[in-house]
Amino acid sequence: MTLHNEALRDRACLIVHGPDQPGIVAAVTSLITRNKGNIISLDQYSDDAFGGAFFQRVVFHRADLTASLPEIEADLEATLTKLGLEWEITDQSIPKRMAILASTSDHCLLELLWRHRGGELPVTIPMVISNHTNTAEDVRSFGVPFFHVPSQGPDKSAAEAEIVRLLAGNVDFIVLARYMQILSSTFLERVGVPVINIHHSFLPAFIGAAPYKKAKQRGVKLIGATSHYVTEDLDEGPIIEQDVARVDHSMDAAALQARGAYVERAVLSRAVQWHAQDRVIRHGNQTIVF
Amino acid sequence: MTLHNEALRDRACLIVHGPDQPGIVAAVTSLITRNKGNIISLDQYSDDAFGGAFFQRVVFHRADLTASLPEIEADLEATLTKLGLEWEITDQSIPKRMAILASTSDHCLLELLWRHRGGELPVTIPMVISNHTNTAEDVRSFGVPFFHVPSQGPDKSAAEAEIVRLLAGNVDFIVLARYMQILSSTFLERVGVPVINIHHSFLPAFIGAAPYKKAKQRGVKLIGATSHYVTEDLDEGPIIEQDVARVDHSMDAAALQARGAYVERAVLSRAVQWHAQDRVIRHGNQTIVF
Amino acid sequence: MTLHNEALRDRACLIVHGPDQPGIVAAVTSLITRNKGNIISLDQYSDDAFGGAFFQRVVFHRADLTASLPEIEADLEATLTKLGLEWEITDQSIPKRMAILASTSDHCLLELLWRHRGGELPVTIPMVISNHTNTAEDVRSFGVPFFHVPSQGPDKSAAEAEIVRLLAGNVDFIVLARYMQILSSTFLERVGVPVINIHHSFLPAFIGAAPYKKAKQRGVKLIGATSHYVTEDLDEGPIIEQDVARVDHSMDAAALQARGAYVERAVLSRAVQWHAQDRVIRHGNQTIVF
Amino acid sequence: MTLHNEALRDRACLIVHGPDQPGIVAAVTSLITRNKGNIISLDQYSDDAFGGAFFQRVVFHRADLTASLPEIEADLEATLTKLGLEWEITDQSIPKRMAILASTSDHCLLELLWRHRGGELPVTIPMVISNHTNTAEDVRSFGVPFFHVPSQGPDKSAAEAEIVRLLAGNVDFIVLARYMQILSSTFLERVGVPVINIHHSFLPAFIGAAPYKKAKQRGVKLIGATSHYVTEDLDEGPIIEQDVARVDHSMDAAALQARGAYVERAVLSRAVQWHAQDRVIRHGNQTIVF
Repeated sequence: MTLHNEALRDRACLIVHGPDQPGIVAAVTSLITRNKGNIISLDQYSDDAFGGAFFQRVVFHRADLTASLPEIEADLEATLTKLGLEWEITDQSIPKRMAILASTSDHCLLELLWRHRGGELPVTIPMVISNHTNTAEDVRSFGVPFFHVPSQGPDKSAAEAEIVRLLAGNVDFIVLARYMQILSSTFLERVGVPVINIHHSFLPAFIGAAPYKKAKQRGVKLIGATSHYVTEDLDEGPIIEQDVARVDHSMDAAALQARGAYVERAVLSRAVQWHAQDRVIRHGNQTIVF
Repeated sequence: MTLHNEALRDRACLIVHGPDQPGIVAAVTSLITRNKGNIISLDQYSDDAFGGAFFQRVVFHRADLTASLPEIEADLEATLTKLGLEWEITDQSIPKRMAILASTSDHCLLELLWRHRGGELPVTIPMVISNHTNTAEDVRSFGVPFFHVPSQGPDKSAAEAEIVRLLAGNVDFIVLARYMQILSSTFLERVGVPVINIHHSFLPAFIGAAPYKKAKQRGVKLIGATSHYVTEDLDEGPIIEQDVARVDHSMDAAALQARGAYVERAVLSRAVQWHAQDRVIRHGNQTIVF
Repeated sequence: MTLHNEALRDRACLIVHGPDQPGIVAAVTSLITRNKGNIISLDQYSDDAFGGAFFQRVVFHRADLTASLPEIEADLEATLTKLGLEWEITDQSIPKRMAILASTSDHCLLELLWRHRGGELPVTIPMVISNHTNTAEDVRSFGVPFFHVPSQGPDKSAAEAEIVRLLAGNVDFIVLARYMQILSSTFLERVGVPVINIHHSFLPAFIGAAPYKKAKQRGVKLIGATSHYVTEDLDEGPIIEQDVARVDHSMDAAALQARGAYVERAVLSRAVQWHAQDRVIRHGNQTIVF
Repeated sequence: MTLHNEALRDRACLIVHGPDQPGIVAAVTSLITRNKGNIISLDQYSDDAFGGAFFQRVVFHRADLTASLPEIEADLEATLTKLGLEWEITDQSIPKRMAILASTSDHCLLELLWRHRGGELPVTIPMVISNHTNTAEDVRSFGVPFFHVPSQGPDKSAAEAEIVRLLAGNVDFIVLARYMQILSSTFLERVGVPVINIHHSFLPAFIGAAPYKKAKQRGVKLIGATSHYVTEDLDEGPIIEQDVARVDHSMDAAALQARGAYVERAVLSRAVQWHAQDRVIRHGNQTIVF
């Protein structure tokens, strides 16, 4: 479909994690070799080589991957399960399906659409959902469906139910591109796929609303943005990526916001790209990014 | 005394601040011209050109500055006071006297001593005071007096009183170079000079003790350091400078601390240099840094 | 026209430069005061306070600026010319007219159109000219006229003449947004307005063609981009802005190019914004950026 | 000896490189497992998974490493040599011996001594050699021997011979900490160990002498530093690390140099640390840094 896929043909990405123990890397790499795979990249991390948690990501090439995948999975099951390890294998030529939720701000939304069009994000975008209509024309000019789901009044349950209906079965992960509605834990449970948010501050500084205003009041000399997985606790989920930009006393809250917009779109884009490439492993409230 | 002073001979630094109004810059620059000064640099900022607060820093050269200073001050008093403006003029060839308070960590302390020896900090250092003795030999090798003031037990009043006795009348500002004791408001009142601290996090994230441990727990992707003026509220004073460094999942709290040490010493050095050059103006809980 | 203009109503920007001498700042600020202007910002720089070159930028508010401008200009002429100073005053509510020249790459072009639509660039864009047609639809979707001027074969004179005809009298400056044609000195002379280029390397490293390929061959650990005014000497004009991004051994030339694209668009955008705001003063082969 | 060594006891670092082919990673990791090693970290890179060059670095723990090393080496020889691969295994608890060559500038020299004292550089420092005497006292205060080898006149052969006599058999690598003498190819041949230099510019910009002066003349907006292995071609060796700092028009060449000194010492320190940890693999004129 996109130019990415041809280069990714017959490439598998294997994620393994669990309790560390001697010989895991050898067991995994031998398994790949006996299944005729050729390792392209391998990243590995243990938070304690003696009794800690172990994480590994291997990308390998295997001719006729689709045909051989069931056999490889059976070998993984037989080999790794008895070691107490969890694993997941994905065909990298199949792009993940990403939905974007947005509000009036368009900078994060358009950045994602733009990078996708440029072939930098290995995803498909089945839909953009917004509680406003101002970005509809832009979104559709990229050939992406746009759905308007208004969200007025204190009770968001009808809007959330409508969004769940649109998403159900159609997406592999969701990106909140400056979506200004707080999602309920019911919603998160129902959609059942990872949700990535961009928060317009360097978390854990300035949690919650109006971070640029708070940053101005505190007189900070750098502003930031944080992309994280959404959990029930607002702005407390596992951080994927963060970055900052220098500011000074002469900038008011609006100027901080204008400068920050460029940090937000870069940070969110990197987080989305890494998630789409299966580079991010969640571990408690932290992430391993390979 | 130091190599700086000759280059700074006959240079004055004038700080003016107060309610903004048309004509201030013209009034100040005309005053300098009629007093035979030649403007070398001028910075100016107003948080609202119509009714806001105005800040200006002018460095100018005036032959025989010492002799003419009383006359210039009289003119400043006559000209600016009626406009409701506050002003302060300093002879830049007279270095400020800086005391350093330290504990066992030596990275910020040595960085300051080192930069001072290299001629980068326009200050004299009449003393280093520490509640430990491990840095005594290093400090004295720079030709700087070292005083040991132990600080044990919950009651710090005797130690603080001893420090005040050493400092009284001898210093123009104090730098806490990773001094691990909380200073009482009584102490701050008695010393009566600005106190600059370095906090080992990107404030307002991770206020208080053990910020690197907290940073590891939160899983941040950048760590930071903040230099600020000390006020009664711990880690809440006006921020002078901040910076960050990139970290990743593979670094434990000790590795964050090792990386962070380089950010701390750079941030503190810049803050001290700017303060020593009269570049920092406090305004409420914020700073204007020219 | 744009949201910028109302905030900029009755704002003038005055640039003064020439041989440094005592009293210039006072002369300029007094002139503004006696012409009923209220100084909003003032930047000043002298490369040597005793006999060097002096540069000043003042932004001031003057009610009914348009009506009073002739009188202010007469005063500037009378006051500054006898001091050997050059000056230029502009009405900040009148946006500069910016033409963009582009080729097939769209990242710099779209970034400028996007920032302009967001109100961040105080310019109008009367036209985009490209030697390719692939961006025509995108450009027109922003409401900006698109002209296709093919440039084939070794003789570019016909194409250049066509471009000059389109630009003549219609633009105040030109931006080369990854325009992959070398412009002749004849062209530069005829258009008679500043031309800003973005070069995809950290100049003076990797002058000329294929800088990302050269960067890969040299094994650099950072790649960069440089925005500069175009002069007769390729890639040798005064630099306005530069920035870099970290890369590593695993990235091939194509990956460097993809990463570099984000540096290019950010660097070019800042350079264009600063030029449009009259913040950049050329001085020999260097720039003063206030 | 230093605090590092205990943590590094029984840790081996294995570097493997050569033509890429399926199964290398499995072969290496199986070898480590059958030799009772527990992999702590593994990095791997291939510049082309199909027929390119392959590079791998594995750190593993093996109880009684010293006793088992001959056996492991025999297995490596038997296993990898037939695959056309080169390998090197080192005991990480044995620090490399690093000599430092310096001139009058002390910032890079002192930074290395300081970081070494802080336990950050896993090396011993058998000697500092300088063609000046100004740093002798500082060096010796760190407990490091200082040798003065003057280098006057155009013929450097006697000085170089003297330096070779001091170094011969005593060091594993050499760091030029702003050593301002050009070393002959004869010298490089005779010392026979890697030599790491810090160049005070962002190479390949400003090759050769006086880069800060050249940077000022060119009007760049960032200055940089580059650490690289020394080869016969001046400033052309494989780059290990680079970084930059922002500067502006108001800084003269001396100010650029003062700012640049902090970039130089940080860049050189990182390069030395990575080299000492066997993280850097030379490949033609490039480096792989794991």
